[in-house]
Amino acid sequence: MQNFNYFTPTKIVFGKDTEQQVGELIKAQHCNKVLIHYGNQSAKKFGLLDRIKASLDNASIAYIELGGVVPNPLLSLVYQGIELCKQEQVDFILAVGGGSVIDSAKAIAYGVAEEGDVWDLFDGKRQATACLPIATVLTISAAGSEMSDGSVITKDEGGIKRGYSNDLSRPKFSILNPELTVTLPDYQTASGNADILMHTMERYFTPNATMEITDTIAESILKTVMKNAQILVKDPKNYQARAEIMWCGSLSHNGLTGCGGGNGDWATHMLEHELSGMFDVTHGAGLAAMWGHWARYVYRDILPRFERFAIHAMGVTPAKTAEQTALKGIEAMENFFRSINMPTNLTELGVKVSTEQITEMAQKCSIASKGSIGAAKTLYEADMIAIYTAAKEA
Amino acid sequence: MQNFNYFTPTKIVFGKDTEQQVGELIKAQHCNKVLIHYGNQSAKKFGLLDRIKASLDNASIAYIELGGVVPNPLLSLVYQGIELCKQEQVDFILAVGGGSVIDSAKAIAYGVAEEGDVWDLFDGKRQATACLPIATVLTISAAGSEMSDGSVITKDEGGIKRGYSNDLSRPKFSILNPELTVTLPDYQTASGNADILMHTMERYFTPNATMEITDTIAESILKTVMKNAQILVKDPKNYQARAEIMWCGSLSHNGLTGCGGGNGDWATHMLEHELSGMFDVTHGAGLAAMWGHWARYVYRDILPRFERFAIHAMGVTPAKTAEQTALKGIEAMENFFRSINMPTNLTELGVKVSTEQITEMAQKCSIASKGSIGAAKTLYEADMIAIYTAAKEA
Repeated sequence: MQNFNYFTPTKIVFGKDTEQQVGELIKAQHCNKVLIHYGNQSAKKFGLLDRIKASLDNASIAYIELGGVVPNPLLSLVYQGIELCKQEQVDFILAVGGGSVIDSAKAIAYGVAEEGDVWDLFDGKRQATACLPIATVLTISAAGSEMSDGSVITKDEGGIKRGYSNDLSRPKFSILNPELTVTLPDYQTASGNADILMHTMERYFTPNATMEITDTIAESILKTVMKNAQILVKDPKNYQARAEIMWCGSLSHNGLTGCGGGNGDWATHMLEHELSGMFDVTHGAGLAAMWGHWARYVYRDILPRFERFAIHAMGVTPAKTAEQTALKGIEAMENFFRSINMPTNLTELGVKVSTEQITEMAQKCSIASKGSIGAAKTLYEADMIAIYTAAKEA
Repeated sequence: MQNFNYFTPTKIVFGKDTEQQVGELIKAQHCNKVLIHYGNQSAKKFGLLDRIKASLDNASIAYIELGGVVPNPLLSLVYQGIELCKQEQVDFILAVGGGSVIDSAKAIAYGVAEEGDVWDLFDGKRQATACLPIATVLTISAAGSEMSDGSVITKDEGGIKRGYSNDLSRPKFSILNPELTVTLPDYQTASGNADILMHTMERYFTPNATMEITDTIAESILKTVMKNAQILVKDPKNYQARAEIMWCGSLSHNGLTGCGGGNGDWATHMLEHELSGMFDVTHGAGLAAMWGHWARYVYRDILPRFERFAIHAMGVTPAKTAEQTALKGIEAMENFFRSINMPTNLTELGVKVSTEQITEMAQKCSIASKGSIGAAKTLYEADMIAIYTAAKEA
């Protein structure tokens, strides 16, 4: 096992009607003016934004608003948010939405608290030294950004999608009311579930020796998400299933599932970032479409790990050889993805990609990652092309 | 399931040689002067205190010292620490030790930051409004205080042991180096392991509907602790086993194992507090001695829960009836306690208790808890007497 740090300072307020506490929770943060940041969809739809504003009014908290965040959130809106916050002397950002809104809020928070171009952080040119405090009211179980240190932003020009992680951006609090996710379209729900699974799997598939407690917690999360994702296919309003998945979404990505195992693999995420940068697909669906092809390309390099995954996470009966067991595990996960109507290749994802576009994505991915990605197996540009091609031709 | 809050702001720095980072970590807290607080045993023994001082010196951090914390830490030393900190203008407390040292540090931290008698908090007379920041270098896996909001202090006069919980006291960071626990006496190691199991079980045995993800994480922790506790009986220097248990100790008591299940039972802890207040026994051993008698007294009230525990945590093959399965689960845990040389009754604990003393403990427990304890089954003074008596006569 490896030494590790674990830091999850975000206060979670979980359950029914918890968004009513938002005013009181922000008041405890002693701020002067709040930016409420949101997207085009869920925040306004069911009166959520009005309920939040009422709670802020009750607590006598001043606020302004900035909507318009899109999936794969754009740098242009981040710049707009930074200007607005500076003009209005905002000192606290409340993100109302899913991962895209929260990631956009984090980027704005860096930009307001610091001098210099915020894109430099995402471009790997410098480290952040300050960040405005943020909080979230979560409306989609998926990204885990409500408890994580990460943010992913897309530069409008060229569709360049880059992530930046820093503990400074971990939210002060996050309000998790599973009821707020009940009205999501089925495809968004399923994509979110794929994303949650992947946040655990990216950490699970490590070449390092790990800790039994971390592995068993990771397997618990995978099994709980799969079981409840299938319940939601048939019964989308099931509160208990929504709650199990929402809490698993935060635990998947707050660091818990990686303790002692090193930094994880993250190759599937890197490959998907280029995909959704170019084609604007839903992140979780893109991950589901890529994962099996990554897994079949790398599993021999960490065979005992894939064997354990097959047996303990996927419930596979061990086959004659470790290799056969591992392959049955990969197949079982792909079958699971299909059972919740997630794609397992690029065609099912609805993406028609040319050979030139695959080369371009691999080149961009290689540049973004300074040459290689992955830990289970180190992948260079030629490997990336092979995996994209397998996902295309499957 | 219940709504819940989850708040674990403590930064964990885990692994070999991590105590060398203490100077740098405190420096990031921007304090003027540190009190190093410790006990009579492990901190000085193997040069740990010297290594910590060297790290503080390297970071140019001023400090003073206060040793002398004993198991079941005393209010008199807390008062002494408060005076010292005020005189010396200490604004940060570093606890080097186990639960007793950390709990003493928390009590001092409240007392320095607030007006009024700190015992009022423990006596339930008021709530804390401030607390100095504290951090810990952990030397015993047991109490979970390194990540929890709790502190337990014993008033010298009358041996009155009381707990107080408040998020203000959660440590800023905790350094968890499993190597620091290798030299513990076997009895202390085993008592710590019993304490860790109990922190999970107190939350697990709830009358409320729970969450699958919380239950499976709790069961993972119980199984991991039991497996590695038995490894340590034969191989006390096993680093991986020490590490698994150390991390489980923090996860057991930071709130994770109770999410969605309500506030837990805690009757065994309350009964044990009176026991170790009167007889000065090791907390974990006292819990092990009491648990089975509590369990047999209450299991019918939450039978499905004890049945699940038997099967999923203890690996019991289901018997003909749920009741038989539940009893097999209780027996299996008692057998486990015996396998790591922990007591399962008061005689094995080395306590000779009279009928009058049992009555006195039950009365004190009843007063401390304002009449009743427990959630699985509400227990009044007569119930407490019955459980103490069963533990005596077993």
